[in-house]
Amino acid sequence: MSDNRAGSQRIGGVLAPVVTPFEADLAPDRKRFIRHCQWLFSQNCGLAPFGTTSEANSMSKGERTSLLDALIAAGIDPSRMMPGTGCCSIIETVELTTHAVKHGCAGVLMLPPFYYKDVREEGLYRYFSEVVQRVGDARLRIYLYHIPPVAIVGITTKLVERLLNAYPNAIAGMKDSSGDWNNTKTFLDAFEESGRSDRTGFDVFVGSETFLLANMRNGGAGTISATANVNPAAIYELYAACVGQSKFENRESKLEQHQARLNVVREVFSSRKFSSMSAALKQAIAIYANDPEWSKVRPPLVELTTEQAKLLSAELKAIGFTMNEIRNTES
Amino acid sequence: MSDNRAGSQRIGGVLAPVVTPFEADLAPDRKRFIRHCQWLFSQNCGLAPFGTTSEANSMSKGERTSLLDALIAAGIDPSRMMPGTGCCSIIETVELTTHAVKHGCAGVLMLPPFYYKDVREEGLYRYFSEVVQRVGDARLRIYLYHIPPVAIVGITTKLVERLLNAYPNAIAGMKDSSGDWNNTKTFLDAFEESGRSDRTGFDVFVGSETFLLANMRNGGAGTISATANVNPAAIYELYAACVGQSKFENRESKLEQHQARLNVVREVFSSRKFSSMSAALKQAIAIYANDPEWSKVRPPLVELTTEQAKLLSAELKAIGFTMNEIRNTES
Repeated sequence: MSDNRAGSQRIGGVLAPVVTPFEADLAPDRKRFIRHCQWLFSQNCGLAPFGTTSEANSMSKGERTSLLDALIAAGIDPSRMMPGTGCCSIIETVELTTHAVKHGCAGVLMLPPFYYKDVREEGLYRYFSEVVQRVGDARLRIYLYHIPPVAIVGITTKLVERLLNAYPNAIAGMKDSSGDWNNTKTFLDAFEESGRSDRTGFDVFVGSETFLLANMRNGGAGTISATANVNPAAIYELYAACVGQSKFENRESKLEQHQARLNVVREVFSSRKFSSMSAALKQAIAIYANDPEWSKVRPPLVELTTEQAKLLSAELKAIGFTMNEIRNTES
Repeated sequence: MSDNRAGSQRIGGVLAPVVTPFEADLAPDRKRFIRHCQWLFSQNCGLAPFGTTSEANSMSKGERTSLLDALIAAGIDPSRMMPGTGCCSIIETVELTTHAVKHGCAGVLMLPPFYYKDVREEGLYRYFSEVVQRVGDARLRIYLYHIPPVAIVGITTKLVERLLNAYPNAIAGMKDSSGDWNNTKTFLDAFEESGRSDRTGFDVFVGSETFLLANMRNGGAGTISATANVNPAAIYELYAACVGQSKFENRESKLEQHQARLNVVREVFSSRKFSSMSAALKQAIAIYANDPEWSKVRPPLVELTTEQAKLLSAELKAIGFTMNEIRNTES
């Protein structure tokens, strides 16, 4: 895989915020989790476990560290992993981050503290500063997680500028899940010149593959997208074509056609009629791996109803959707 | 104290979401915390530690359980306590709630899971159901915490109705911090008839003493208010006058005058010019106890600037504000 960007050891490409399977009693299902992660890896997809799609905030700190331990023990390469570690409290964020860094993870995806609203930039700056200082490890690479529709509290260019000045090695980039290309472009433009001798730039991942082509055309690092849980190979193919050196015929138009095909799949999963993206993605895995156990989510999320599940199945069939080599964990 | 409501063993009256003092290294300052709780008790004020004003979501689960252990060890009566225990994950909410119930706390104040937005009522119902069932203790009394400006995810009358039907003993009431009296009135009206043989009604606490008189006139249980951290005696006096049997001269007009005086104090602290309510309250304690250490907050909150602190001091002086018998912990 040529996913680490040229001239840097930074992680790039396509990453999946891995959905977390649960047992009937809601305990994390390690066996299915590891199997799914291995499948994603086989499709050239890196892992961003414990993200929004992963229902990470519905899990305890202990459950998260224990699942990461299980992935490492199963031989999953930490250099292709960016676990989510941002909690409301500095204490828990530092514990999860330290744990990920000690495992050699390529980076961590960090939510801002999201309980208090209308907090000042100074307060967020102090929060992230405190985390960097407490973790105190030169290997730390933080990707700031901007997802205003969910966290409400967001990441601004001014905040990034202050943090980059203070911690040029630790602040490595961001994931922009604003769903607003203009916002992504603002960050790409603001920090395109930030590569300096002591660091290697500010890497922007888009939170949806819908913006992958645009992101790669503008110097972005890739995408960390929910849909990568079910459509990793096709998304990776677009990424690879973007970063590839070969100038194939009608390159730009072919890239755009590829992007359009990805958007069709994304659109099915992001439809509001399917309860939540997490529930819809899990239902799709349940269908394509013929493994109904996969559909379980933790409250406050709810599974798709039987009718919703049928509709999802029909819509995916209608667009000719497939999942390469996905298998039932029991088989 | 006659704060437990007639005909019930339920907690009522005035409760303070206790501000949490921090050391220079941001660790919770137990000594000041216990001292402040003891002072609040001496002013007829019950305790709702680990609320929004307490910066509970900026603390880890371990810090919260350890501070509650310290309060109990210091002899603070758990029958006058309602610790906040609601986290994003069922696992942590159950652990904190079980811990509080085992200590004999009168109730727990429970936020809904607040990370995922636009969740369905069914998902919130399942969340609270799961918590009640996992705690599995007949002593459990949950007060649902509605604070839409902060948590965004709120509590609806339909959700309460479903929960009350399923768990008439465990679902004891709510704190309404919507800041909207019409909303409080809707809950009071909806559940005024809910007192049945097997339970004792749905107790509504207002999240600001601004609505205390209105709440008590409409069958409410009291208030859990940030300002009770600094103005407990005066707030309690209004509560006591409301529930007292004596028909003093010009009763209604005197109650309204008292309410108006409380509002003047509240207005100073809730001014947006003072960064956050938590920071302003801590600054006031620092001033009146002559104990500058009190001003510390955890990121993402920030302390008042020197100018803001001076302004707060001047405004409090201008309205003749005092704090009865507050003392420096070091003295």
